Amino acid sequence: MLPELDDLNTFRDALRTAPGPDGDALQGAADRNGQLTKPPGALGRLEELAIWYAGWRGDAQPRIEAPQVIVFAGNHGVTAQGVSAFPPEVTAQMVLNFEHGGAAINQLAKAAGARMTVQALDLDRPTADFTQGPAMTEAELLDALRTGWRAVDPDADLLVVGEMGIGNTTPAAAIACALFGGEAADWTGRGTGVDDAGLANKTRVVAEGVALHGGSGDGLEILRCLGGRELAAMAGAIAAARVLRIPVILDGFICTAAAACLDRVAPGALDHAVAGHQSAEGAHAAMLGKLDKEPLLNLGLRLGEGSGGALAINILKSAVACHSGMATFTEAGVSEG
Amino acid sequence: MLPELDDLNTFRDALRTAPGPDGDALQGAADRNGQLTKPPGALGRLEELAIWYAGWRGDAQPRIEAPQVIVFAGNHGVTAQGVSAFPPEVTAQMVLNFEHGGAAINQLAKAAGARMTVQALDLDRPTADFTQGPAMTEAELLDALRTGWRAVDPDADLLVVGEMGIGNTTPAAAIACALFGGEAADWTGRGTGVDDAGLANKTRVVAEGVALHGGSGDGLEILRCLGGRELAAMAGAIAAARVLRIPVILDGFICTAAAACLDRVAPGALDHAVAGHQSAEGAHAAMLGKLDKEPLLNLGLRLGEGSGGALAINILKSAVACHSGMATFTEAGVSEG
Repeated sequence: MLPELDDLNTFRDALRTAPGPDGDALQGAADRNGQLTKPPGALGRLEELAIWYAGWRGDAQPRIEAPQVIVFAGNHGVTAQGVSAFPPEVTAQMVLNFEHGGAAINQLAKAAGARMTVQALDLDRPTADFTQGPAMTEAELLDALRTGWRAVDPDADLLVVGEMGIGNTTPAAAIACALFGGEAADWTGRGTGVDDAGLANKTRVVAEGVALHGGSGDGLEILRCLGGRELAAMAGAIAAARVLRIPVILDGFICTAAAACLDRVAPGALDHAVAGHQSAEGAHAAMLGKLDKEPLLNLGLRLGEGSGGALAINILKSAVACHSGMATFTEAGVSEG
Repeated sequence: MLPELDDLNTFRDALRTAPGPDGDALQGAADRNGQLTKPPGALGRLEELAIWYAGWRGDAQPRIEAPQVIVFAGNHGVTAQGVSAFPPEVTAQMVLNFEHGGAAINQLAKAAGARMTVQALDLDRPTADFTQGPAMTEAELLDALRTGWRAVDPDADLLVVGEMGIGNTTPAAAIACALFGGEAADWTGRGTGVDDAGLANKTRVVAEGVALHGGSGDGLEILRCLGGRELAAMAGAIAAARVLRIPVILDGFICTAAAACLDRVAPGALDHAVAGHQSAEGAHAAMLGKLDKEPLLNLGLRLGEGSGGALAINILKSAVACHSGMATFTEAGVSEG
């Protein structure tokens, strides 16, 4: 059961006291894995994934039948600084496209057998430009976290969260820089495709934001000052899934930045999450490295929307299908090596 | 339409005169890709895959609805040399496991929405030990090629071929060494899990086979002398798919070695094939490099059976689903960047 989010400390406490994976299910799944009709380890990472999934679901022989994909959309005051190749109106236009089934994530969610919904967060009220002040007030952050927190279906057995928000690789880069250190240039990339001058400008914007807010306390405070509503909603949903023991597949650069804020609030907050893919956005690999997450896919995607996470759903489904559906050596009458 | 395989030269001719992709469909798919509601290139390799698939199917907006998985099984005289950690009886035992739905490939084919069949090739008549003479006669090779050739459903729209054959990483390594040169040790790995002494022995066996047959003419002759029935059947099926313009996803080390023989017979013979994954069998990456194939997945699998190829079906399905199902900027009323 999810507690109501009365304030930010309720959120922090829920994350810090969330239960871990089930030890019996982990052991049962590992035992079962050793008896399946294949040479030891021959399914590689699929074996680890299935055991990990079994632990979180508390079932040594689980199924994945109800994956959920949620796309959150938000607008960013920092677009006034000219950080994106696309105009901010595209956020709302793309929300309509999601609702009408025309975006990449619609096709990918369908191909993965996942239910998909989209939630737009106050698109007509962009966050504040973080080079001037905090992107959100505490009340705005709480609202956005709560939107994500409540969006998770307690009956889902797998969660992918995605985003749409013109300009949002800029807050994501700023969050990464504030959390992990280094230079703004280390974390700033071309997003949907800015040119060299655009990249230099974007790097300046990230540097200014981090200089203004970088020492701002814990993960939630960094998310408030440098993030955006859709990033906070993603963080809220990933946190709710952690409390509900619903495994998560992380998407790309922006999703991972949002998730990283949780890891700073409570170490282990992302133990229920795997990295769906490595984005072509340059700093994503480094961000995953900081979180010790090895991506499942590396296919040059840099779209967001949850696309890389959704694409990886079938990998996890396949891993669990092998684990739970294969015969053991004894059942099949096959000689062990 | 597939010609009847009267002799090995019919096979060679069919492969050499097989049609290429449809230029109009390629162009139409590339044009469509540029109009879809995403930043240019943001779906990375999924975009290339969809255009490639469209060309082979002759349809600028294709669907994947009938993937076929075929598992071929064969036994190898070279197991007398102690090259495998498993006894040869396991080949037939695993064929029963495939037929009863208990193997990894059954679960993976099902998860990919693919129809799967298994064909055992004369399991009670292992090929000859290639350290003593050619593995197969010309008649045996032709029979095995024909089994694969006829197994492809002309109505399939995607093909994965897999294999089961205790000891068959040894012929695969020998084929790779004969085709691509280098030392036996460069191509010989641990297969299902031989120890250091086993690996040294296996390397000796590969070296002896290549020394005896390595100069043996074209790809089919190398396949005959060093291969096995299930490898030849895979080659036959991949060739039939080439003639029928059915795209193929290659599996791992053994499948790729069989496919590589075709590439030697007719350059371009594998243009209709992508590499599903990079196997944990050490030399697979080098083999893919020689064929200029970039793997879609790299998850440490080393099982065979077609498992890595089947796991990649959903990646290709997802790529095609995005390409054919997404709205264009005009349809969705979204502003271009």
